[in-house]
Amino acid sequence: MSFFVTGAAGFIGSNLCDALLARGASVIGYDNFSTGAPEFLVEAKKSPRFSLVTGDLLDTARLAEAMHGSEVVLHLSANADVRFGLEHPRRDLEQNTIATFNVLEAMRANRVGTICFASTGSVYGEAAIIPTPEDAPFPVQTSLYAASKVAGEGMITSYAEGFGVRALIFRFVSILGERYTHGHVFDFYRSLKNDPSSLRILGDGNQKKSYLHVKDCVSAILLALENSSSKVSIYNLGTDEYCKVTESARWIADKMGVRPEFEFTGGARGWVGDNPFIFLETKRIREMGWVPEFGIREGVERTVDWLAANEWVFEKRV
Amino acid sequence: MSFFVTGAAGFIGSNLCDALLARGASVIGYDNFSTGAPEFLVEAKKSPRFSLVTGDLLDTARLAEAMHGSEVVLHLSANADVRFGLEHPRRDLEQNTIATFNVLEAMRANRVGTICFASTGSVYGEAAIIPTPEDAPFPVQTSLYAASKVAGEGMITSYAEGFGVRALIFRFVSILGERYTHGHVFDFYRSLKNDPSSLRILGDGNQKKSYLHVKDCVSAILLALENSSSKVSIYNLGTDEYCKVTESARWIADKMGVRPEFEFTGGARGWVGDNPFIFLETKRIREMGWVPEFGIREGVERTVDWLAANEWVFEKRV
Repeated sequence: MSFFVTGAAGFIGSNLCDALLARGASVIGYDNFSTGAPEFLVEAKKSPRFSLVTGDLLDTARLAEAMHGSEVVLHLSANADVRFGLEHPRRDLEQNTIATFNVLEAMRANRVGTICFASTGSVYGEAAIIPTPEDAPFPVQTSLYAASKVAGEGMITSYAEGFGVRALIFRFVSILGERYTHGHVFDFYRSLKNDPSSLRILGDGNQKKSYLHVKDCVSAILLALENSSSKVSIYNLGTDEYCKVTESARWIADKMGVRPEFEFTGGARGWVGDNPFIFLETKRIREMGWVPEFGIREGVERTVDWLAANEWVFEKRV
Repeated sequence: MSFFVTGAAGFIGSNLCDALLARGASVIGYDNFSTGAPEFLVEAKKSPRFSLVTGDLLDTARLAEAMHGSEVVLHLSANADVRFGLEHPRRDLEQNTIATFNVLEAMRANRVGTICFASTGSVYGEAAIIPTPEDAPFPVQTSLYAASKVAGEGMITSYAEGFGVRALIFRFVSILGERYTHGHVFDFYRSLKNDPSSLRILGDGNQKKSYLHVKDCVSAILLALENSSSKVSIYNLGTDEYCKVTESARWIADKMGVRPEFEFTGGARGWVGDNPFIFLETKRIREMGWVPEFGIREGVERTVDWLAANEWVFEKRV
């Protein structure tokens, strides 16, 4: 099978490329390297079955040409910066909504039959039901990031209905692990490196969040891709746990061997549009036989280990 | 109060302008006349409190300038062509999703505090619950039109959360009445004028649909605007009835005094992405005191009357 991975040089995208190549697949990676890292593709590039196209999803001609001959698109590319969406509202529209439309049009031009889409558990907004199932009550979007993912989901399922594309949509909790380059573990690690004596935590620290290790995320995507035959399949991905922000802050500090004092900015939410409790029901993907290998604490700790061994990622990003 | 109406020369937009002007408001109408009709603004133009700006929502500079000084935006402009979305997929993205983003950005630039958005009952897809409430289970989108409306809703509520805009979202059933220029009454009327002996009906004719008269739609919007103070308010709009496509076809034929034979194209759906049963629960807006004045049959018949008195609309549109 030949796969086309958008955001191939990104955190999840590059892990997915490696997993596909390990299974003997052919992979074309597409990335504009705005946030992706060439370092993440060092493994993939060793395979003769991998090829890389440097390009932007807004460059429709380049995208359509690069996708030629692919059978499955794994659309991982996105502006994944939830927190600062309000500072540059056009970014989610362009890099997520319009980019996803362009991916769909390129698929149509190339007669690609299947798309896997990286959506987010944030689409549930401030969920009325927790743990939140895939058919939770119609949510009200609170962030431009989640709004752009809902927009992407809607276009994808409409293409499934209208053009016979098979669509698999994955609503992730926050993903952790090797090649993780943004999020709270990244921020806390960097802050504690600079000043191990104190740690500023957004909100009151009681926000309850879920995390999933990237290897478990990738295994779920590949399992669903192999086993689901529906026109549209939607799966929540997460572990059966959640933790408070203060708990994970403590795990990070312990793993780093430091004992900071926590300072809280206050309030139930870390930022405007933050969801104070994210916990997804994952019965649907589990019924397919998926079991995550790593718990939340292990995921956090492995992420700290990886960051400690790859401090160059802090140089790269501001 | 000063209002800014997008799609002011359209079916619902022009009716809204008239109602606002009758209440003493100031109105700036904005339209690119791609489907709007100057004839619909003849009444409005008689008022010194009305001004018209011919412009496109994709022209961000013109839009922001035109909106200057407005207090409330009523965003009615849209590509409303649900059925042919697959023939030009980019249209819903541009004229609905991107256009709505541009409206929000123009509001931010002009510090406009309130937006009313014309969404659609189609956002519920093939609804699991009928009559469908506003918090129905998270739907799967089946048309690019509805997908673009969900995208618009998501951006609007995110702006409400992030920038303090007050958002009122109205999910309409199909609207009928004076200045109606597209939809099944339009198509059936035109067809029966050409050939009163037979009528081709898409699907098996058993699709169950809801309709609302435009005056009732406008009164609901204005009532909610006056009485709702929440950051985000979402209202279904429709009557407490539905009818089968064959029933309304018969009402139309009877009203025209013709007795056609019905020919069915077959299948449960009229077109790819069509929803075979649309019926919305409207408890939320009714609790505010709203009662529709017209039933479905009356709405259909008044629409036939209006089309008969305004056959120029068939010349205008292909």
